[in-house]
Amino acid sequence: MSLGARLDWARLRSRRAPDLHGWVKVDLEAMWATPDLLYLCDGAPSPEQMPVDRLRQAQAHAWEEAGDILSYGESLGHEPLRSAIAERMADRGVSDIDADQILITNGSQQGLDLVARALFDRGDIVIVEGPTYFGALQAFDAYGVEYRVAPMDEHGLIPELLEPLLIQEPRPKAIYTVPTFQNPTGVTLSPERREQLLALARLANVAVIEDDPYGEIYYTDEPVAPLRALDPNVIYLGTFSKTLAPALRMGWLVAPPDIFRLASNSKEAVDIMSDRFVQRAVVGTIADGWLDNQLVGGRAFYRERRDRMLAALEREMPEGVSWTKPEGGFFLWLSLPNGLTGDVLLRQALTHQLGFLPGSCFYPDSRPDTALRLSWPTTAPDMIDEGIRRLGLAIRECLSEQII
Amino acid sequence: MSLGARLDWARLRSRRAPDLHGWVKVDLEAMWATPDLLYLCDGAPSPEQMPVDRLRQAQAHAWEEAGDILSYGESLGHEPLRSAIAERMADRGVSDIDADQILITNGSQQGLDLVARALFDRGDIVIVEGPTYFGALQAFDAYGVEYRVAPMDEHGLIPELLEPLLIQEPRPKAIYTVPTFQNPTGVTLSPERREQLLALARLANVAVIEDDPYGEIYYTDEPVAPLRALDPNVIYLGTFSKTLAPALRMGWLVAPPDIFRLASNSKEAVDIMSDRFVQRAVVGTIADGWLDNQLVGGRAFYRERRDRMLAALEREMPEGVSWTKPEGGFFLWLSLPNGLTGDVLLRQALTHQLGFLPGSCFYPDSRPDTALRLSWPTTAPDMIDEGIRRLGLAIRECLSEQII
Repeated sequence: MSLGARLDWARLRSRRAPDLHGWVKVDLEAMWATPDLLYLCDGAPSPEQMPVDRLRQAQAHAWEEAGDILSYGESLGHEPLRSAIAERMADRGVSDIDADQILITNGSQQGLDLVARALFDRGDIVIVEGPTYFGALQAFDAYGVEYRVAPMDEHGLIPELLEPLLIQEPRPKAIYTVPTFQNPTGVTLSPERREQLLALARLANVAVIEDDPYGEIYYTDEPVAPLRALDPNVIYLGTFSKTLAPALRMGWLVAPPDIFRLASNSKEAVDIMSDRFVQRAVVGTIADGWLDNQLVGGRAFYRERRDRMLAALEREMPEGVSWTKPEGGFFLWLSLPNGLTGDVLLRQALTHQLGFLPGSCFYPDSRPDTALRLSWPTTAPDMIDEGIRRLGLAIRECLSEQII
Repeated sequence: MSLGARLDWARLRSRRAPDLHGWVKVDLEAMWATPDLLYLCDGAPSPEQMPVDRLRQAQAHAWEEAGDILSYGESLGHEPLRSAIAERMADRGVSDIDADQILITNGSQQGLDLVARALFDRGDIVIVEGPTYFGALQAFDAYGVEYRVAPMDEHGLIPELLEPLLIQEPRPKAIYTVPTFQNPTGVTLSPERREQLLALARLANVAVIEDDPYGEIYYTDEPVAPLRALDPNVIYLGTFSKTLAPALRMGWLVAPPDIFRLASNSKEAVDIMSDRFVQRAVVGTIADGWLDNQLVGGRAFYRERRDRMLAALEREMPEGVSWTKPEGGFFLWLSLPNGLTGDVLLRQALTHQLGFLPGSCFYPDSRPDTALRLSWPTTAPDMIDEGIRRLGLAIRECLSEQII
């Protein structure tokens, strides 16, 4: 056998799915190769809202400790950062935790992986919202789970339709939810339903995984408290990706003791610890109420763009199209008439240099959904107008030419 | 049921091992609580060898691009960093790869997790060296694998003893090896055995995972080329944790196309991408041959400490104790006489304020091994002398009092 011989990797690889949920149905290459693409689906904060100078100063300051922080360190994370997060959680109604109950993660995406690792074995059932965040499916898939999709309306998960999914055999292990300004729909679980969801989960002995990237980006006067404020059983994932910057890869996890211990041990096993400089830079950036002040401006900035998009939709959308009116976060969900799917519409929209993610990206079975996700944070107001104009054009073309 | 009721987490948690390999047998709390502990087992580079000023400048420079790099970015990693790594690999004899075949990881620890995820299902068999790096066991454990331990001698894995483990049913999926300046023994797989190992692996269709954190820290005139230079089937893990600084969490993975694709998709699923600033800071730090020059001094620095430790061992060890003489890296392996285990010796050593990791940490079954790991990089030369003096004292006490 020659040195160049190739091993039979098909026999060696694991049984995990090789493709990533969310991208299966979208010809991303074609989308990104479209010249002058106007992309109305970014999940990132606006560069104008990222605190470049403050982060830069904080990072320079972190170097003053450089001799001590270049080596290996705490797997849980930098204690002052965990303390600062505990204080921020208390301000949002989660007053029963301290720094030692917080694990620093590389964004909430790593939190999803660590929680999945703590909870799931092959064949376990996870209930997800329909539609749901595909990054969670990507994280959970590695553990061989199967999904049940719980229907939502404009108030979030519908308890009456969730209940049968909870008692169906085999019994599920967890419910994954983005209860506040959901990705992808922008809807928020109502206060009554929050209580109902938690009561159902306790009765069925099912873990609730609360993913909360957008809770601090609210557009009304009243912030929404996390589910975790109502029930210490809730596993909570937070992140600075939307309030500071995604590139920092800084998030955190809060969980009941058994799960927290498993997740902390896993953190050590998967990458030992998060970057020690960046943790210090984040502490410096959020200190002295700075981030809270920053967010006042950020909320106004994003709200203006949301208003602009809602107004453009009112103006441009043909009859039969409907959409959610989110009170925070980055996304809304647009539903199409006459069986027109987001997949089909995307092909037409690309001929007008408009891109978005079709609804099929947000279901475990990639169903050809008659909806799509839109976002506003990174798009200038006049381009929001232009994008929604092109979207209306593409929808009308599809409907009139009966392309469905 | 009250809101305070606790879910039955024992029924919800996954079947993965809750404890981390490596720490099971060591009372770490007692060790770290020992006042004025002299710890001869650090796996980190010396702070004096970490390029603080250069990193600081490079990071400040990275901010000039800040507007573009604060958002989400390439899951594979920053292209100039991947190109620079490809060049460095070529200098070490791996000339058939380019930037697109390199995935940036959070240290090689994350590489271990991504490779395990690509290869392993519950019940799969992995062959590891006896002793082996416990961090690999920590990473692989999450996938429910079982281990076979392949014996080593002073030239590394012994092909004649490896072969029966390869053909035993169920057939193994992979061999995990640190072939160069191994952790924990410091031994290097001989050139002849490298060829034999690769030939056996090809015949048995078993993946070879090469973990190479120490290959650039050599003390002889002739660097050792990675296994990957001999065979493109080898899955290779590199890191800047030993040559720059652990806190950066920067490593890389090279793998055959099928495995590379799975690992890249998994990188997106586990944390989307590595920190974009730090990647740029690393490019700036290693550019223009700077790291290569730095390593010339680093090797001399570590070699001097290794020499100091070897001389102290010659002086202080009672008869019957033997140890490896590593030609690079950070560790040596000390074997004890008369059935004295590292676990027992550690308790005695702690009474002299001396700490180390006993051999039991480095086996999947935590067997009570009559050996221990020692390291020199972070210990000043006079403290190396003092540590080895205390070690000799503790060994003699155990042997004379017949504490075994």
